[in-house]
Amino acid sequence: MVNLAVDFGNTRVKYGVFQDSKLIETWSGDVAAAKAQISKLQQTYVIDQVMICSTGNSKDFVTFAEKAGLSIEVLSSKTKLPFSNAYETPETLGVDRMALVAGAQKMYPGKHVLVIDAGTCVTYDFKDTADVYQGGAISPGLGMRFRAMHEFTAGLPLVDYPEMPENVIGKNTKSAMRSGAIHGILAEIEGVISWYKSNYEPLTIILTGGDGQFLSSRLKNGIFANSNFLLEGLNYIIEFNRD
Amino acid sequence: MVNLAVDFGNTRVKYGVFQDSKLIETWSGDVAAAKAQISKLQQTYVIDQVMICSTGNSKDFVTFAEKAGLSIEVLSSKTKLPFSNAYETPETLGVDRMALVAGAQKMYPGKHVLVIDAGTCVTYDFKDTADVYQGGAISPGLGMRFRAMHEFTAGLPLVDYPEMPENVIGKNTKSAMRSGAIHGILAEIEGVISWYKSNYEPLTIILTGGDGQFLSSRLKNGIFANSNFLLEGLNYIIEFNRD
Repeated sequence: MVNLAVDFGNTRVKYGVFQDSKLIETWSGDVAAAKAQISKLQQTYVIDQVMICSTGNSKDFVTFAEKAGLSIEVLSSKTKLPFSNAYETPETLGVDRMALVAGAQKMYPGKHVLVIDAGTCVTYDFKDTADVYQGGAISPGLGMRFRAMHEFTAGLPLVDYPEMPENVIGKNTKSAMRSGAIHGILAEIEGVISWYKSNYEPLTIILTGGDGQFLSSRLKNGIFANSNFLLEGLNYIIEFNRD
Repeated sequence: MVNLAVDFGNTRVKYGVFQDSKLIETWSGDVAAAKAQISKLQQTYVIDQVMICSTGNSKDFVTFAEKAGLSIEVLSSKTKLPFSNAYETPETLGVDRMALVAGAQKMYPGKHVLVIDAGTCVTYDFKDTADVYQGGAISPGLGMRFRAMHEFTAGLPLVDYPEMPENVIGKNTKSAMRSGAIHGILAEIEGVISWYKSNYEPLTIILTGGDGQFLSSRLKNGIFANSNFLLEGLNYIIEFNRD
């Protein structure tokens, strides 16, 4: 049984091919390339089910996939989820966060799990030992912090972040901004983890998302970095709805 | 001897009247109101010197003050400062940060001082026991974090922050965003303070800026909240240049 899990963002599409619950292939690129790529996939695999987690405008892509004969479902608040939800407004819970919590449920049932997704925004999502999703937090992602400092002030430049700043004490404008954004987000993540740990021990911590790898080397031990966690969750939602 | 210290921002002007080195009166409001207010001040005091720290467009205001017969100086990288500067690019050091470090120099000479200004951006500035300014960091301010999450994503609302969120675990979109922005910035500030403390003990910590009061109640003890710290620094720069 082959499933295709698609993470459809604002500028980037990422997918994973799951065969008998195992992730055997991932790919990421822009929408046009994704379409071509999926046509190729159909020559290699008999795709049973596609689940798409869309935080971008995926209408055109969904139409394309349906025309290609794929059985496609778009994750929404109407989708049956494999965990209990204590969010006050489940209809406003982002589909990316639903998929991440499904991943936590699949891989760590019966455990306290905090999933941190360092993408456009940083999302923090917590599932407890009773397998109830309790909620979490949303803060600006790393790239967003740099963009905001540039666009929302008169004088600050747009700074990239190819590498970790050497020092907390920045000695020029760019290094000061890199220190503030990068050491700031690291301190934020460590602080949030500490809070959860002091309330929910033992705690399993997952770090994923576009900046997950970049940030993971500087975070304390005991964090599992997994760049495909959202795809794993999506595939679990497919399996859960099939059973 | 009466000095007038003016903090001229993007949308708000704040000033302080200093008589014989003592801050005796502060005021804040928009530019139009500031002009009227300064004319009134001239009826009450004989103003010896005005120092303006401008991060907004203050040209028109400066012309107004000069026409009103005031002796006005605009703080710039050419101004003689009462501390040594180890910043690699002193000409790019923000004038607000110069004034804050001057305040640290005046009030805590010979001490390690970290000044945290929680305004449009959060700035961290460190002066050591040799009275050398070493540099610091710049990260997005609290309001900027909310604005960025709204403007740079398709789905998130603009959220205000009238009060401290009760819980780190947000149970709806707005409370999750409030948790992420507010508990996030608090964790960032605590983390940065910890880093400085572990490298520069004993450390004096000043918290100032528009969000300083809001944040101070939730930060650990040992932080001096002073909403007029920048004005104190400006007045000290006037006095230093007079001597």
